[in-house]
Amino acid sequence: MAVNLLPPDAAALLAVPGVELGFAEAGIRKAGRRDLMLMQLAPGSRVAGVFTQNSFAAAPVQVCRAQLASGAPVRAIIVNAGNANCGTGEQGLAAARKTCAVVAQALGCKDSEVLPFSTGVILEHLPVERIAAALPACKAGLAAANWAGAAQAIMTTDTVAKACSRSVLIGGAQVSVTGMAKGVGMLQPNMATMLAFIATDAAVTQAVLARLVKEVADLSFNRVTVDGDTSTNDSFVIAATGKAAHAAIAGDGDDCQALKAALCEVAVHLAQSIARDGEGATKFITINVNGAASADEAHVVAKCIAHSPLVKTAFFASDPNLGRLIMAIGNAGISALDTARVDLYLGDVKVIDRGGRAASYREEDGARVMKPAEIAVRVELGRGKGTATVWTCDYSYDYVKINAEYRT
Amino acid sequence: MAVNLLPPDAAALLAVPGVELGFAEAGIRKAGRRDLMLMQLAPGSRVAGVFTQNSFAAAPVQVCRAQLASGAPVRAIIVNAGNANCGTGEQGLAAARKTCAVVAQALGCKDSEVLPFSTGVILEHLPVERIAAALPACKAGLAAANWAGAAQAIMTTDTVAKACSRSVLIGGAQVSVTGMAKGVGMLQPNMATMLAFIATDAAVTQAVLARLVKEVADLSFNRVTVDGDTSTNDSFVIAATGKAAHAAIAGDGDDCQALKAALCEVAVHLAQSIARDGEGATKFITINVNGAASADEAHVVAKCIAHSPLVKTAFFASDPNLGRLIMAIGNAGISALDTARVDLYLGDVKVIDRGGRAASYREEDGARVMKPAEIAVRVELGRGKGTATVWTCDYSYDYVKINAEYRT
Repeated sequence: MAVNLLPPDAAALLAVPGVELGFAEAGIRKAGRRDLMLMQLAPGSRVAGVFTQNSFAAAPVQVCRAQLASGAPVRAIIVNAGNANCGTGEQGLAAARKTCAVVAQALGCKDSEVLPFSTGVILEHLPVERIAAALPACKAGLAAANWAGAAQAIMTTDTVAKACSRSVLIGGAQVSVTGMAKGVGMLQPNMATMLAFIATDAAVTQAVLARLVKEVADLSFNRVTVDGDTSTNDSFVIAATGKAAHAAIAGDGDDCQALKAALCEVAVHLAQSIARDGEGATKFITINVNGAASADEAHVVAKCIAHSPLVKTAFFASDPNLGRLIMAIGNAGISALDTARVDLYLGDVKVIDRGGRAASYREEDGARVMKPAEIAVRVELGRGKGTATVWTCDYSYDYVKINAEYRT
Repeated sequence: MAVNLLPPDAAALLAVPGVELGFAEAGIRKAGRRDLMLMQLAPGSRVAGVFTQNSFAAAPVQVCRAQLASGAPVRAIIVNAGNANCGTGEQGLAAARKTCAVVAQALGCKDSEVLPFSTGVILEHLPVERIAAALPACKAGLAAANWAGAAQAIMTTDTVAKACSRSVLIGGAQVSVTGMAKGVGMLQPNMATMLAFIATDAAVTQAVLARLVKEVADLSFNRVTVDGDTSTNDSFVIAATGKAAHAAIAGDGDDCQALKAALCEVAVHLAQSIARDGEGATKFITINVNGAASADEAHVVAKCIAHSPLVKTAFFASDPNLGRLIMAIGNAGISALDTARVDLYLGDVKVIDRGGRAASYREEDGARVMKPAEIAVRVELGRGKGTATVWTCDYSYDYVKINAEYRT
């Protein structure tokens, strides 16, 4: 039921030199479902990440943060679906560390060289023994061409696997950028996303990579929302293996910009895929806010529209009950908003003119632009030059159904 | 389908000396539905109100604010359901003023002595001529015993009329407090509520009444939320006719506290009724947060739980998927929250113990306390003495249905 989103074409996903992926059924999520994914990185790879701002950061997030902060190299990423290992206290931290240990033993690296990720039900203890039992199958299957299968193994209620690739020329060398993501609900990433992993064979210093992961998150995963809830496990990681034959990117020059553009293209595609596959989604909605006093202000207004259950149910119904958009803008808490300067367009139809119903607006025009599966909302605040775009989806019966029956 | 909420018993609603109510079918909402309510106040009545914090305050809210700020006396309140007169620009302001004028003409008072209120669809122009045509019927029916019918006439998607009364002894005089409210969605009042009107024959100075309306709103309507959306038309007004035989309340003494207690009881009942009748509600949920650094902080955490679509769908399903409560608490943006000090109870069952799943917690205990139509959540943050209570309801298929089909 995802909106205009097909599974990735496995043949179109570029292998990334220095990256191998394997997966297996560990029996953590459901019988007959792959739910364990192992990504092995070549020696010398650099890794940077951003993580959830939720105070109850899951145990694996705490372990990842500590290991990345220590500056230790990263040789492997292990991801389980079906259990978030969150709200599990000391026992949960021990389980995350034990997961690193069993992976390190299997691969012959140090515990500190493994980053653990979990996604699924909160408040249940992680069965590490099932991860240990499934690891040999993951390891035996390690291959550079496994991105499509890996993207499938990290899914929870996702209906479509999310992965894509770009190729970019850097310093005369052809560089691959391939990423995958999962996530369809509990989704308002804040400086991070649900789980997303992008790998590239570009050569880049740790300092540049740490900056890029933040900048790319801000232009992609931080612009998408499904239900306004921020997960306890949000993680976005970029790994750069340095296998490509170009001089390492150390500054902010053309090579860096080229790499950033490719990373952003992959990340934006993945972020939009998350909204397209939002729980119960029947519409993909792009909300563009211009004329704000700042980019942050524009972002706040766009998110306020994107989060309103009333706006989202109206989109589901294809009902141009557009007064709800006014309500949502007014609800953003923008100080001294002069509503008489606010215009609003739905697709090519002007709905609000200087704060009131546009004289030219006709209900049948509203109905026409509400009907398609992809809808664009544009707000002009008339306060300045700040601008922001957010992607979201509608609220349908199936959103309630999926979340009411999540654990059954 | 409201949760443990019966229509008010008309005989149990106390008449308020100095207050008469009438209603009629104006044809603004739906054929065959009363949708116009007139409340006439005796000369000398004092009125104070609080209104929505939404930037797109509706035209009637703007007119009410200006008239109350002018200090002019208030002789009448007119309410229409079916049209919010919001997002209607200058034409909307003119319509609200015209409404006051036709009421003033019918009652023989000044335009400035009438407060207008509207609730319903946003972004459509108010048909004042229908209000004018229905006014004679409203006026002819004016009576002190009409509270139940009046409460019904201000409903939109409410399934049950909301009204109640208390009697209180002040300075030896028996004083009546009777109120009504409407509202079931677009509902996270902020310093106000949906439409709520409380009248009393107590004698009270304007300064005390202005303070009381804020204090009472903060303890009642500001503690209820259905979907986190703040309406453009929220209004809460208290009218005091001064007909009771006691000395006017001018300070903060025992008489004031007695009146405030009675007003609060009525307001809390009405506010809880709003959550019980929340759109599609099948559960009434009380969220109590203790041990916060401040009352405001406790309120933020309680609201964050109450707004989470994931928490609300889990309540609908009676599914003790309680990790979502952890997610919602962590999502409240509380600075330096030490999650290892957080406990959480559902009814009498301890679910979270010092930030993790309680060792004593058993799934069947969670299932037991999730089953009833009334559920209590208690959070202990372990940071201080701040406390707050918020009332809300669950998210069901019917929430989506009601809002997807709102205008059909």
